[in-house]
Amino acid sequence: MPSPVTPPRGMRDILPADKARREALLATIRDTYRRHGFDEIETPVMEDSSRLHAGLGGDNEKLAFAVMKRGLTTDELRSAATPLELADLGLRFDLTVPLARFYASNRAELPSVFRAIQIAPVWRAERPQKGRYRQFVQCDIDIIGEPGVFAEIELITATVDALAALGVPGCTIRINDRRLLTSMLATLGFPAGEGEAVLITLDKLDKIGVDGVLAELRERGMPEAAVAALAEVPALVAAKAGESATTAVTAEAIRASLPDGIDETAVSDLAEIAAAVGEGVPLAFDPFLVRGMGYYTGPIFEVAHPEFGYSLGGGGRYDGMIGRFAGTDVAACGFSLGFERLVDLVTTVEDARGGSALIVDKDVAPADTISLKRALVEGGERVRVVTRAKNMRALLERLEADGYTRSATVRAGERDAATLQWRALGE
Amino acid sequence: MPSPVTPPRGMRDILPADKARREALLATIRDTYRRHGFDEIETPVMEDSSRLHAGLGGDNEKLAFAVMKRGLTTDELRSAATPLELADLGLRFDLTVPLARFYASNRAELPSVFRAIQIAPVWRAERPQKGRYRQFVQCDIDIIGEPGVFAEIELITATVDALAALGVPGCTIRINDRRLLTSMLATLGFPAGEGEAVLITLDKLDKIGVDGVLAELRERGMPEAAVAALAEVPALVAAKAGESATTAVTAEAIRASLPDGIDETAVSDLAEIAAAVGEGVPLAFDPFLVRGMGYYTGPIFEVAHPEFGYSLGGGGRYDGMIGRFAGTDVAACGFSLGFERLVDLVTTVEDARGGSALIVDKDVAPADTISLKRALVEGGERVRVVTRAKNMRALLERLEADGYTRSATVRAGERDAATLQWRALGE
Repeated sequence: MPSPVTPPRGMRDILPADKARREALLATIRDTYRRHGFDEIETPVMEDSSRLHAGLGGDNEKLAFAVMKRGLTTDELRSAATPLELADLGLRFDLTVPLARFYASNRAELPSVFRAIQIAPVWRAERPQKGRYRQFVQCDIDIIGEPGVFAEIELITATVDALAALGVPGCTIRINDRRLLTSMLATLGFPAGEGEAVLITLDKLDKIGVDGVLAELRERGMPEAAVAALAEVPALVAAKAGESATTAVTAEAIRASLPDGIDETAVSDLAEIAAAVGEGVPLAFDPFLVRGMGYYTGPIFEVAHPEFGYSLGGGGRYDGMIGRFAGTDVAACGFSLGFERLVDLVTTVEDARGGSALIVDKDVAPADTISLKRALVEGGERVRVVTRAKNMRALLERLEADGYTRSATVRAGERDAATLQWRALGE
Repeated sequence: MPSPVTPPRGMRDILPADKARREALLATIRDTYRRHGFDEIETPVMEDSSRLHAGLGGDNEKLAFAVMKRGLTTDELRSAATPLELADLGLRFDLTVPLARFYASNRAELPSVFRAIQIAPVWRAERPQKGRYRQFVQCDIDIIGEPGVFAEIELITATVDALAALGVPGCTIRINDRRLLTSMLATLGFPAGEGEAVLITLDKLDKIGVDGVLAELRERGMPEAAVAALAEVPALVAAKAGESATTAVTAEAIRASLPDGIDETAVSDLAEIAAAVGEGVPLAFDPFLVRGMGYYTGPIFEVAHPEFGYSLGGGGRYDGMIGRFAGTDVAACGFSLGFERLVDLVTTVEDARGGSALIVDKDVAPADTISLKRALVEGGERVRVVTRAKNMRALLERLEADGYTRSATVRAGERDAATLQWRALGE
């Protein structure tokens, strides 16, 4: 029978074994990013409501949990035109908007090229469903102040190393460039103001297929000539034929996938990124990778895994965003891993096992027990004290399940940790 | 000029050096508690509003940040009698209410005596002032399911060890017992229903002095005979004479401080705790230690430090609380350290220094730079790549400030990490 006392809807308690496992994985990610020259920072979980709702969070803004102003009067409740007027703060829905605000607040104290690690929870009031939570951890790295592709190169290599350190094999990094998408749509004849709308449709390619995309574009009233030209784009012809639209990331392969007239700087940037990260990194050009957020301005990328229909992470360049807070434009690029999905995937982490259990008779003086325990703790042991119980078997099984590897019985008068008789648990 | 882009009022950004220092201290605390047999858990930052406002949080309930229901209509805004009707969730104001809820939700999967670590932020909408934040970290350990004093003994020894591991000397653990306070007030003739009110006044002893306490009790309409009897309590007589009211924690010293008729079980419990923790632990009986929260039922304790007018942490036994969520009474006892105060106090932690900087000429190919960087990272180094700048001095100073200890210049064509010429930073 489920307990009636549950965490809030869509949120979870994390029990000891799970917590230890999560912290071990996060330490691996943190350590990898740190060695790659990134520095961890932290921002408050709340941001001013006006910042969260500045149009930089896309659809996620609608999912923000709003925090009410304190001390509201009944009059203020009555006169509010919308609920948001009653909120002055909100819980962050991502780590990118807070980072942009952080950088604007603290740039005088940061290096001119700032490499940030943020490993922290975010909150979204999504409809709860299996595998989706309303509080979940993201692991973001961002490079602020580097306009060249070396930022993308460092982000991708650090992320690939983190995935390798976690023991997640088989990932592919799909890459594209917003400038390729925009220039392709322009050259095909889509109206300049319709770019975002066309991209939203194009983003559904995996779900609705080529014909679905073309039909939806026509429904949206796009010029027939542009839609027909799109249908002739080599990558889309390949997708329609059931072939993969992804190719190697070389200038030739990219040009062969797309129509003439695409942004050549983007082509050479992607080729340079691929050449620099090297053959050990499984990179693939995906001409229809869109990434939902409107703030991307250059290369965009996503971690695909064969076992999952969704990505394990993604990111890209967002050069215009920091300027919204800082006043002047600052180049920025980031890569985010979705931790909750990784946790399910990683099976290789060993438990942090080890520990000594003292099984104490009821007539042992607390002073003796604690002094035995402290002597062991001082020697570096992890020690749990349990009172001898009738059901010793359940007690020993519990200790074993919790990672303890040996036990000793403590009888009245026993005061020397060195003479305890240890027995391995599980024997 | 301060930046106009700031974190929310009363909250802080944590910059890299500070973040590294905080995480190192938290790791020390976590490791100490883990060796003492405690296991870390995590709960969502939000709890259902009805749970947060169940009367278990004392004054802190009023300071809770309330999270608005999603999708509220204008009609719902208009018809709300109080702001709280519009909130279904709130941010936790402590870690004790969530722990009680956690235990009730998950007890079937926990050991019969459960020792929990919670190291996590809490939120209180207090008036911002120096050294007080609206988001701050607490480090709590709790033992659930142990009715005997061994719980207090383990909590106090683990806390004292954590303070020692952090390098915070000079702390005293003040101890008292709610049963002593209650039985003293009854035996002095205070009305049974006025206990909590009298304790609130008594809690101000440090601030308003003996005469202030007596005057306030008279103002509150307490029986003159009871107030007069209180004035004769040996510990209060000592306090009035400017002597310390604290004594050694022995049954004799406790009895000598207080009137006849006090709870003898509490006296022997405190004496047993003191005997067991031993002389290495600086324990002092404080007959007027009250601790604010109404849920305490037995021994209570507080960490005092000579440099501070406030405590660094505290806790006590709260046997009735878990039952409010779990349905059946479960013994519980906890000890909480206020992390923000400790951070200011600890000066002995060394920076996690070390790292190699690659100073790259502008004409070096990104592919070469990243392969040098990866070779060093794979060897366990922490590596930062910087582009050669006009102001090399500022660049080197920045690297040194950020903990990097050596640098090498990378020129075009350089591909072998083993032949880089290193130079110590700061020379």
